[in-house]
Amino acid sequence: MSSAWLLPEHIADVLPSQARRIEELRRELLDGARAYGFELVMPPLLEHLDSLLSGTGSALDLKTFKLVDQLSGRTLGVRADTTSQVARIDAHLLNRHGVTRLCYCGPVLHTRPDGLHGTREPLQFGAEIYGHAGLEADLEVMELALDALQRAGVAKLTLDLGDARIVRGVLADVSLDAASRDAVYAALAAKDQSGLEELTASFPAESRAAVLALLRLYGGDDVLVAARRELPARPLITAALDDLQWLTSHLRAAYPGVRIGFDLADLSGYAYYSGARFAIFAAGSADALVRGGRYDEVGAIFGRNRPAAGFSTDLKQLVVLASAHPLRPAVRAPWGEDASLRNAIRQLREQGESVVCVLPGHEHEGQEFDCDRELVASGGQWVVRAL
Amino acid sequence: MSSAWLLPEHIADVLPSQARRIEELRRELLDGARAYGFELVMPPLLEHLDSLLSGTGSALDLKTFKLVDQLSGRTLGVRADTTSQVARIDAHLLNRHGVTRLCYCGPVLHTRPDGLHGTREPLQFGAEIYGHAGLEADLEVMELALDALQRAGVAKLTLDLGDARIVRGVLADVSLDAASRDAVYAALAAKDQSGLEELTASFPAESRAAVLALLRLYGGDDVLVAARRELPARPLITAALDDLQWLTSHLRAAYPGVRIGFDLADLSGYAYYSGARFAIFAAGSADALVRGGRYDEVGAIFGRNRPAAGFSTDLKQLVVLASAHPLRPAVRAPWGEDASLRNAIRQLREQGESVVCVLPGHEHEGQEFDCDRELVASGGQWVVRAL
Repeated sequence: MSSAWLLPEHIADVLPSQARRIEELRRELLDGARAYGFELVMPPLLEHLDSLLSGTGSALDLKTFKLVDQLSGRTLGVRADTTSQVARIDAHLLNRHGVTRLCYCGPVLHTRPDGLHGTREPLQFGAEIYGHAGLEADLEVMELALDALQRAGVAKLTLDLGDARIVRGVLADVSLDAASRDAVYAALAAKDQSGLEELTASFPAESRAAVLALLRLYGGDDVLVAARRELPARPLITAALDDLQWLTSHLRAAYPGVRIGFDLADLSGYAYYSGARFAIFAAGSADALVRGGRYDEVGAIFGRNRPAAGFSTDLKQLVVLASAHPLRPAVRAPWGEDASLRNAIRQLREQGESVVCVLPGHEHEGQEFDCDRELVASGGQWVVRAL
Repeated sequence: MSSAWLLPEHIADVLPSQARRIEELRRELLDGARAYGFELVMPPLLEHLDSLLSGTGSALDLKTFKLVDQLSGRTLGVRADTTSQVARIDAHLLNRHGVTRLCYCGPVLHTRPDGLHGTREPLQFGAEIYGHAGLEADLEVMELALDALQRAGVAKLTLDLGDARIVRGVLADVSLDAASRDAVYAALAAKDQSGLEELTASFPAESRAAVLALLRLYGGDDVLVAARRELPARPLITAALDDLQWLTSHLRAAYPGVRIGFDLADLSGYAYYSGARFAIFAAGSADALVRGGRYDEVGAIFGRNRPAAGFSTDLKQLVVLASAHPLRPAVRAPWGEDASLRNAIRQLREQGESVVCVLPGHEHEGQEFDCDRELVASGGQWVVRAL
C-alpha cells in the first residue's frame, strides 16, 4: 500500500532508504557551504504574508499556503521559497556592512506542484552572498553549486546561463502595462513565435526584431556572438553579454567537464532576478536541479538594498540522481540484563557502530536492519563475530 | 532590530551561532539513534486532517493549523506532532512483522505556544519502537533519550516516571462522560484538591479516595510504596506499579547519575499514552526537555494495532542547555584568477577547512567569519600562515 492512498496528492512520506540518502546529501551540502564560509540560518516556516511575499511576484503568491494567525488575526503564509526570508535576515537582523554569506536547508510548501511528478514539499537547500555587486559573487555561488552536485555524485552536468537584463533591455523603449508584459514573458518562455509576432505588432521595429531574435538565442557559444549582432547595443544588454562572457570563461577554466549553454529568453523561476541567472541540469533530468543568479532588489523592501547572488536546489529531486554511500552494516546483539553485555554494547556504539538489540521473543524474526556481525559470549567475554 | 518586529509572535529566525549548534545537535541525535538501529523517516509537513489527528485527542486538534487543499478541496493540517505520522508509516508503508525502530527530525507548527516563552515552531526529534509489547522497548527509548541528552552535554538530569494506566485504573469503576473525565484530568494536572473533592463527590468511596491520593503521589521512591498502600489493587494499577519498579531498577543501574522521580497523576502531553510515561528535566529548565512513553493504540486507526514506545524532544529548546563544540576557525584567502591560488583553496576545502575568499574591494572590511589563518603567496607558492 503506497502513501498515495492516504496522503494528499504530490505529498509523500520519505522512507528509510531514501531518507538516509537525503540526510547524507544534506550534510554534504551544508558542509560544502561551510567550507566556502557560508553561515547557516534557519528562517521560520511561517511569516506574515506581506513580509514573505515582498517583491517576489505573483507566481510565488499563488504557490503560498495562507493561514490565519489565532494570536493576531493577521494572515500568515507558509514559506514557498526561502530567498526573501534570508534577504530579510541579512537586511534586518545581521545588519552587517561587509560581505555576508548565508545558507539554509529546510522544507517549503507549495499549493500546487511544479509539473506532473513534482512534490509540493521540496526540501530546499540554498546559499546566498550579500554585499558584493561584482561578478566574483556570481561566480562563487555557481562554483559552490557545481561543487555540491559533483560531490553528490551527479554526473554529466549542464549549466545554462541567461541574464534578466537582456529581456528588460530589449523591452526598454516599449511602454507596456503589466498584463501585456506578462503575456510577452509567457510567449518567450513558451517559445511561441506566432504569439510573439502578434503581441509585438505595435512595438518599435528594433525592439520587435530583438524580441523575436530572443527566440533563437539559445544553445552553445555562438549564442553570445549572435546576440551581439542581433540585439541592439543598449547598455543593459551589453553589460549582460559582457558578464556572461566573463562568467563563461571562468567556469570553463574551473569546470572543464561541465557543458555550458545559453538561453537568453529564459525567464523561468521567480521574478526577483536582476542580473546573470543560471540553471544546472543533469543528464536524465528534464527539470533544472539548481536555479540561481543575482537578485539585488530582494532586500529593498526591508530597507536595505544590498547586492545579492545565490541559488537553491530541492534535495528530494537531487537525491534521485545522487550516488549513495554504502551503509555500514550493523552488529546484532542479544538483549540481556548482564552488565558486561550492556557495557560491550555501549562501547561499540561509542566507537560509531550501530548495535541492534534483539528484544526478547523476537529472536527468530527477520531483522530489517542490515547486520553483518553479532555480539556473542565467548570465553567469559563478549566478542563481535561475523554473521 | 529583533525579528519580533517583523515576525508573528512566538516565531523567530535562528541566526548563525545558534543554527550551527542546532545542526550539531541534530546530527548527534540522529547518529545516536542510528547507533541503536533506528532508521530515519521523513513524514510530510501536510496531511489530510482526519489522518493527522486520528486518535490523538482534542489538545492536538486545537494546536493544528488547518488549510484547504486547492487540488482536492479537502482540509489539510500542518503537523503539530509527528508521532501519529510515524505510526501511520509503520502500519501502512513498512508493514513489517518484526520489531521496527524509526526516528525523525523536522519542524512542527503550533497555532498557540506552550507557555509564555515557547516557540510555535519546535524542531522535533523523536524515536519510536514498534512491535514489542515488553518493557525492554520502554527501557530502550528511555536509554536512547538519556544518552542523547548526556551526549549533548545537558547536565543534572531528572527522569520523572508515570503510567497512563494508573489514572485509568483508579477511574475504572466510575462511569463518566467525556466532559467530566476531562474535568477530573484537568484538576489532577493542576493538583486542585478542592476541585477534585467536588468532582468526585458522587464517586464510589474507594475510587474517590484513590483519586485524591493521586494528588500526593509524586516525589521519590517512597511514592511506589505509598501507591501500593493507597491505591486499590486493581490489575491495571498493579501492572503499572510493577512496570515502574522494573524500569526504575534498570535505569538506576545504567544511569546512576540521573535522579528518578515519580508523578502518578501526571497527564500532560498528548492523549495517546497507554502505559508507562516519562519526562526528562534538566536543572535550569522548568519544562520537560523530553516526553515519551508507551502508546500502543496510536496505529489502531490505520488498521494495525502494534505495540509502540517512543519519545520526542524540541531541538530549539534543547540547544539552550546543550554545550556547543568550539568552531574551528577558517582560513582567509585573497580572491584571484591565478590557477595555483584556486587550486590551493580547493585543496584546503577538500581537507575539511573553511576557506573564505575576500572578494575584491572588501579587503579592509571586518570579516564576520572567524579566521585565524590566511593563505599567502610565499616563495612562488601558496602557504597557510597564522593571522
